[in-house]
Amino acid sequence: MAFRMQFLSDNAAAVHPHVWEAMHRADAADTPYDTDRLSAQLDDAFGALFNREVAVLWAATGTAANCLALATMVAPHGAVLCHREAHIETDECGAPGFYLHGAKLVLAEGEGAKLTPATVRAALDAIRDDVHQAQVHALSLTQATEYGRCYRPHELSAIDAAVSGRGLRLHMDGARFANAVAFLNVPPAEAAGPVDALSFGCVKNGAMGAEAIVFFDPGLAEIARWRRKRAGHLQSKGRFLAAQVLAMLDGDLWLHNAAAANAAAAEIGRGAGERLLHPVEANEVFLHCTAEEREALRAQGFGFYDWGPDAARFVAAWDTRQEHAQALGDALAGL
Amino acid sequence: MAFRMQFLSDNAAAVHPHVWEAMHRADAADTPYDTDRLSAQLDDAFGALFNREVAVLWAATGTAANCLALATMVAPHGAVLCHREAHIETDECGAPGFYLHGAKLVLAEGEGAKLTPATVRAALDAIRDDVHQAQVHALSLTQATEYGRCYRPHELSAIDAAVSGRGLRLHMDGARFANAVAFLNVPPAEAAGPVDALSFGCVKNGAMGAEAIVFFDPGLAEIARWRRKRAGHLQSKGRFLAAQVLAMLDGDLWLHNAAAANAAAAEIGRGAGERLLHPVEANEVFLHCTAEEREALRAQGFGFYDWGPDAARFVAAWDTRQEHAQALGDALAGL
Amino acid sequence: MAFRMQFLSDNAAAVHPHVWEAMHRADAADTPYDTDRLSAQLDDAFGALFNREVAVLWAATGTAANCLALATMVAPHGAVLCHREAHIETDECGAPGFYLHGAKLVLAEGEGAKLTPATVRAALDAIRDDVHQAQVHALSLTQATEYGRCYRPHELSAIDAAVSGRGLRLHMDGARFANAVAFLNVPPAEAAGPVDALSFGCVKNGAMGAEAIVFFDPGLAEIARWRRKRAGHLQSKGRFLAAQVLAMLDGDLWLHNAAAANAAAAEIGRGAGERLLHPVEANEVFLHCTAEEREALRAQGFGFYDWGPDAARFVAAWDTRQEHAQALGDALAGL
Amino acid sequence: MAFRMQFLSDNAAAVHPHVWEAMHRADAADTPYDTDRLSAQLDDAFGALFNREVAVLWAATGTAANCLALATMVAPHGAVLCHREAHIETDECGAPGFYLHGAKLVLAEGEGAKLTPATVRAALDAIRDDVHQAQVHALSLTQATEYGRCYRPHELSAIDAAVSGRGLRLHMDGARFANAVAFLNVPPAEAAGPVDALSFGCVKNGAMGAEAIVFFDPGLAEIARWRRKRAGHLQSKGRFLAAQVLAMLDGDLWLHNAAAANAAAAEIGRGAGERLLHPVEANEVFLHCTAEEREALRAQGFGFYDWGPDAARFVAAWDTRQEHAQALGDALAGL
Repeated sequence: MAFRMQFLSDNAAAVHPHVWEAMHRADAADTPYDTDRLSAQLDDAFGALFNREVAVLWAATGTAANCLALATMVAPHGAVLCHREAHIETDECGAPGFYLHGAKLVLAEGEGAKLTPATVRAALDAIRDDVHQAQVHALSLTQATEYGRCYRPHELSAIDAAVSGRGLRLHMDGARFANAVAFLNVPPAEAAGPVDALSFGCVKNGAMGAEAIVFFDPGLAEIARWRRKRAGHLQSKGRFLAAQVLAMLDGDLWLHNAAAANAAAAEIGRGAGERLLHPVEANEVFLHCTAEEREALRAQGFGFYDWGPDAARFVAAWDTRQEHAQALGDALAGL
Repeated sequence: MAFRMQFLSDNAAAVHPHVWEAMHRADAADTPYDTDRLSAQLDDAFGALFNREVAVLWAATGTAANCLALATMVAPHGAVLCHREAHIETDECGAPGFYLHGAKLVLAEGEGAKLTPATVRAALDAIRDDVHQAQVHALSLTQATEYGRCYRPHELSAIDAAVSGRGLRLHMDGARFANAVAFLNVPPAEAAGPVDALSFGCVKNGAMGAEAIVFFDPGLAEIARWRRKRAGHLQSKGRFLAAQVLAMLDGDLWLHNAAAANAAAAEIGRGAGERLLHPVEANEVFLHCTAEEREALRAQGFGFYDWGPDAARFVAAWDTRQEHAQALGDALAGL
Repeated sequence: MAFRMQFLSDNAAAVHPHVWEAMHRADAADTPYDTDRLSAQLDDAFGALFNREVAVLWAATGTAANCLALATMVAPHGAVLCHREAHIETDECGAPGFYLHGAKLVLAEGEGAKLTPATVRAALDAIRDDVHQAQVHALSLTQATEYGRCYRPHELSAIDAAVSGRGLRLHMDGARFANAVAFLNVPPAEAAGPVDALSFGCVKNGAMGAEAIVFFDPGLAEIARWRRKRAGHLQSKGRFLAAQVLAMLDGDLWLHNAAAANAAAAEIGRGAGERLLHPVEANEVFLHCTAEEREALRAQGFGFYDWGPDAARFVAAWDTRQEHAQALGDALAGL
Repeated sequence: MAFRMQFLSDNAAAVHPHVWEAMHRADAADTPYDTDRLSAQLDDAFGALFNREVAVLWAATGTAANCLALATMVAPHGAVLCHREAHIETDECGAPGFYLHGAKLVLAEGEGAKLTPATVRAALDAIRDDVHQAQVHALSLTQATEYGRCYRPHELSAIDAAVSGRGLRLHMDGARFANAVAFLNVPPAEAAGPVDALSFGCVKNGAMGAEAIVFFDPGLAEIARWRRKRAGHLQSKGRFLAAQVLAMLDGDLWLHNAAAANAAAAEIGRGAGERLLHPVEANEVFLHCTAEEREALRAQGFGFYDWGPDAARFVAAWDTRQEHAQALGDALAGL
């Protein structure tokens, strides 16, 4: 932690001042759990954002948001189809197995951790329709993906069309949904596409410990309420989570924060040039980088993760200072 | 929520200013999850409090704390012995069933929601030692109980002696452990007795969304770490939870807050006199009260819960104003 | 096992010759799992018995049958209402917790282990309709009960009426359904009443290792098929289970066997006279009996279980010899 | 099922006459569950076979046997390492997810569905040792594999050495263990290698519905007993399962039956020649075969499964008639 300029992750960034203010305002007495006045505003706030009726629950983490959403869609004897490098597969310590009571994750391929109609179909078609193999009940997409790649609206539609008639539910892990919307420059509803539930990330984007699960099928939210309590995620001072989420929506803070992070990543990407492993779309930069080069960068004060033996990952956050991004871009260009 | 003087619960009270300050200090960049400098201080801070080596994890809610602790002690084919009115049985929507993968809760009796050596033995002896009945792997005590009653150290020892030789683990739900210690006026270690893990409550006592799970057997904490992640309870900005917990310990804020709540409850109890259903030990007051009397109290601006047809529950919090408690005591005396 | 005359249980009795014959006939090659010709006959065979469309699955044990049926009716965050002395509560080592992923069992009272409209309503009304308490999704009745008591058709209707409008599913544990029908002397459909699924017991009544789960709502069977496979209960030579079940139905063997067992129990009951703890309706006899008296009986060659310190349980099976029942009746009369 | 000569699978073959006889002998009254005299003989019978102390439980299916064994080795937050084409991954409808409460299956590669030290190490090394990724608690090998390939004793030792120091338990899915031993021509203990538990298959080899779980660490069996009951797999007339298993051991019936099946497969393999996809080691034959060729074979009366678009699978069973195997071999040679 001695690095002056941090690009390790967006997941531990500072809390935005507007979020702090909203939390302080929420300190006034109110009723417990999600019966408070702020929690009651979530449906309307997100309804306005997505321009349709939604039911919204807060949860403290993205893992909880993803799993609570999926638990409403997938029976224990079913399966979730996701990318081989989806967060639910690689970084949640089997949380879907816990929340879905042993349902399987079926893994599909795709460049940049993006599923495609072809890879989805291939994964589905490999499953025999008999009782010996768990059938896929839901598809989980990540927007933006683990490599910071964004699904275009037409790509979401094409995937939806590809699974049409199979009775699948659709979930979107939107831990970095804001970054995707900022990049795509489309209305949020188009960036979400035809999904039944969206884990709308806030923690990586300026909040402290609150994500929103946006159910486009409100009936699913009714199930998720029980599961949330049962998972110990119904905080008694839930008003502080609602306050965080509402503050993110207020004045489109979520979008401004994401745009700032994306801009910093773009700056880094410009410096990286040919080194880039993936086009920089959201707030993450993956690039070729030898061990010696990484050492040199760290010596200059840049903190970041190795990404295998010959690569590195740099993540910009809402509060990444533009001069740090510039300095990193310059350093990369100068390697 | 129109009541001027709230005695509904301590679970939605305001956040103590010292906790706010600690959280703000924690905003500075640090590493994610529980790798930050504050989380690293928990073991020592609680070690000092309990005067022995402990391993401590934060969790957002009491339900999560209880279940994560129990999940380290009870196999899925086992059972937890608890009081019929324990929170894990009555108010967690089956969370223990979720976290313990279907392990049973075996219910025992006891006045004031307190287990006794006799009721514990009776419950255990009713279980045949054969494969057709789930065997008890752990005993869960609540300090203070759901009725605000406190186990004296010798009572804890007696229960421990009663189950000796049966290979049981002991857990303590200490959502209101602070109130118990304030009442008992003994060192925390004596109020916890011989338990293997303690859910050390902070949320009801001035924190926002952080409890501490204190493992007196550090080996159990190693299991709990995985379970916490897997349950979506490993918050990426965990430093804010650690900050809350440390702030509660700092200068014995936990004890001062609890003492204030207890004092308010005692004041109410004095006014209640013969109406009391339980001696007032911690911060809760249960009393006989007809529907008409409850209406009269509410008309005077007091908010509280009915407790069945002929009783009411009043809960004082750390921030209950002494004049409100007095006013309530007077009102009760004047019924 | 040195006792000449066994009344320990019906659960380990011999296999009926007709069942053996049917199993031998099934040895001829056929397709695996439940794709064989015998398994395919189950729906029609039970459809004829119950005079309505049903979907039927075999399972090796009553515990599996009960739990597979309930798993189609109860979400993990829900609960099953059953009698405090129901087999699923007392003798399945938490199997419902396993199969239902932690759903709770809510216990109700009733004489002779029979639920009543009043006890069912009392148990349901004690549950707050909020997210902190698991809601009941299904009611499980046992016909005949653990004490050999039988629900009359009008009693089943009354319970059904009592839960009307609550959206509950109904399950019947019919490990001794045959004995109940033989006693009630009504069509099987009336003894089952308005349930959605019935565990139709065969093992205690002349089969070797096969029960039938009769789904009166065939949609539930579609779920149960997956759960059965997933539980390791889809035997590859399933034709042998189907053969057993069909043999039980053939020529009403199930009813004749049950009638024989009931007759033996009635004979014992006549000898027991005033000692009886419960009226003898099915094939079980519970009676007052001191330790000395039990010793005397065992000295005469009768095998049976103690039932607490002052009672004993005698169970007759399909193959209990009438002279043994008579001898026991005489011995009891002569105590 | 119109084919005169069946090579679809060994899983629905007839029951061996010796097994029938043993079952009939077991019909005599005995005590329920696994308290009977036959179940009590299992430990010694397998102890003699493996020349060491073991604890043995019966279970009705291979899926149950595998999952009950693994459930004693793997915590819900852990993982099982197995081959990508292992039965527990591909053909048990998520049963490991159910029995292991959501633990993951980590998949490794290897020719012929055989793991190697290198592929095992590669899979293990890909898992970060942090709380975000489920750690492997057990390794599951299949002997013979899904492609009828057998691990030589030195290969088992090498895999064991490769995972040494990682604290892994070892499980062997031996649904066709007999075929492997018959092929390897080594003592059973060498074919099992250093595993902690072996699912010793009988159903595919002449039994009706009984497998043996052989625990080389008897402490694990103590856990499995509870899990078996809780899974509804503790049959009350367990003596019939014990009888089947003991009959398989008696006079080495298990080995003779497997040798017969292997011989038939070898005969087929000889005819297949260059078409073979895998060397024929056990009782399965996989070969290249166009759709037209498959049609021609079926027209000659041979029943078998397609194996993708250009291949077919033929399985010989203990009761495969030598002239059928010869006819098939000839037909393949003549294609």
